[in-house]
Amino acid sequence: MRAEILTIGDELLIGQTVNTNAAWIGEHLTLSGVDVACAVTVGDDESAIRRALARAYDEAELVITTGGLGPTHDDITKVAVAAYFDKDLHFDAAILDEIEKRFAGRGIKMPSGNQGQAMVPEGFEILPNPNGTAPGLWYETEERMLAVLPGVPHEMQALMSDEVLPRLRRHGGLRVIGQRTLHTAGIGESNLQERIGDLSGLLNDHLRLAFLPGTGGVRLRLTALAKEQATAEASLDAFEQHLRSRIDRYVFGTNGETLESVVGRLLRERGLTLSVAESCTGGLVAHQLTNVSGSSAYLAGAIVAYSNQAKINLLE
Amino acid sequence: MRAEILTIGDELLIGQTVNTNAAWIGEHLTLSGVDVACAVTVGDDESAIRRALARAYDEAELVITTGGLGPTHDDITKVAVAAYFDKDLHFDAAILDEIEKRFAGRGIKMPSGNQGQAMVPEGFEILPNPNGTAPGLWYETEERMLAVLPGVPHEMQALMSDEVLPRLRRHGGLRVIGQRTLHTAGIGESNLQERIGDLSGLLNDHLRLAFLPGTGGVRLRLTALAKEQATAEASLDAFEQHLRSRIDRYVFGTNGETLESVVGRLLRERGLTLSVAESCTGGLVAHQLTNVSGSSAYLAGAIVAYSNQAKINLLE
Repeated sequence: MRAEILTIGDELLIGQTVNTNAAWIGEHLTLSGVDVACAVTVGDDESAIRRALARAYDEAELVITTGGLGPTHDDITKVAVAAYFDKDLHFDAAILDEIEKRFAGRGIKMPSGNQGQAMVPEGFEILPNPNGTAPGLWYETEERMLAVLPGVPHEMQALMSDEVLPRLRRHGGLRVIGQRTLHTAGIGESNLQERIGDLSGLLNDHLRLAFLPGTGGVRLRLTALAKEQATAEASLDAFEQHLRSRIDRYVFGTNGETLESVVGRLLRERGLTLSVAESCTGGLVAHQLTNVSGSSAYLAGAIVAYSNQAKINLLE
Repeated sequence: MRAEILTIGDELLIGQTVNTNAAWIGEHLTLSGVDVACAVTVGDDESAIRRALARAYDEAELVITTGGLGPTHDDITKVAVAAYFDKDLHFDAAILDEIEKRFAGRGIKMPSGNQGQAMVPEGFEILPNPNGTAPGLWYETEERMLAVLPGVPHEMQALMSDEVLPRLRRHGGLRVIGQRTLHTAGIGESNLQERIGDLSGLLNDHLRLAFLPGTGGVRLRLTALAKEQATAEASLDAFEQHLRSRIDRYVFGTNGETLESVVGRLLRERGLTLSVAESCTGGLVAHQLTNVSGSSAYLAGAIVAYSNQAKINLLE
């Protein structure tokens, strides 16, 4: 299934807010086996939203929008959605009741601006939002699915987890995506690629490799697509083995592991403790080691002998 | 001027990386008076990049892309750009020379994968990248401008500031952005605001203040927009003086200064030296102090007495 994410809000375009919603939705769709083809951000502008919606609906089977469901004049996602599908907006008394209760619970009279949040395009299903005044919307045809979600991150996340992802799973047939990360150190991106050699006979639409360079080393992200989780895992196992046959000495860990957590695990396994003497790293080695929870089991302490005199006095 | 931002990379779509580049570019274009109409993210897929480029080029006078300029097989932005404009990619010996020098400077032979980074579409101008191996590209016609930038944030930011924004300004009508940051410590955001008092008579579309709370304290970002750099700087000077008249004792530095750099400067000025003994901070205090270049002039060293035994042995 191909999906497009459409995030709506001026604050995203002008860089006032970093678009963490697109990343969160992208990650959770990917993990659920949905292929995220594109992520688009437009401002609080009815015609821009309508055009973006038209293009997304043209290219993807699943479209998820966030933002523009609030009570103020610039929240016009529902108007744009209703216009695009040529649906009337009707008033839903049950939603208004929920919103009024929410305000009453805080001892506040509902401002009139919130009434618009009770408007629903004809034929759209309401996704109740327990964390805010803006409910989500769901619209499904034989070929397409659309989720309209609020932009407040924790409200959007709850609606995705409790309403949208379960609906997608019910459709079945979703491709499973398996991912694995190999962490390397002590070798650069291009040298790593040279050692791995030509993968053109191995890589295809269902098996992918990405090089992700960072300050601590290059991560290799292996992705396998399959009908079943077990098949994806088997591909990843074989691919990992192939890569390790060429670069095993540079691979220090997989997935959530870090260099310092691997060092810690090895020390624990061998019942060893560690003291650090560092100079120009200035405490960074000790700091990273102590970032691992439980490091007091093996780390005695560190001396940062920065000046020559300190090297003589403290380290003799 | 209408702009569209096109960020390229699978890691963005699957949510492994949050798209901070789009926010940074959006913010700096907006402050320069450019209207950011849309931000699109696509994966490392040639035809998806080409289609996105076609749509962006159709709707905006300025298109800025980031990502996909690295040395590995999944970095295909230039191929897609050349294909979209129907240009040949030609080999640029001067770029290759720069890349080889960069590797030689680190005592490494350049891997063959990096050769592709020296390919340039016909008629494109090269934007030299002092911080990495991937130069940016600039393409300008009577009606449109295109900047192709690397995805590594600090490389992209330098190219935007030093190459792209000055080119846009040459087209006239753009505003100059003056920014200054005051770093505070030892006071919370709301107390700070209370002490600063009402600024409504002072702030407007051309003079702005943002409160940026972080772990080390609250930063105050002052922004002044003007036709000329000198006017912007004069506004910032007056604004800073006004703020300092109210909160000067909480301000420890400006712009690129950090708490540790200011501590270092004060130690130097007074001819003092510093030794650190830390426990659960695990080396972080020493590490931050040694991050300041020239810190060896005043920092003797540090003891990270992590275990009780180390506290007794090293610190008595």
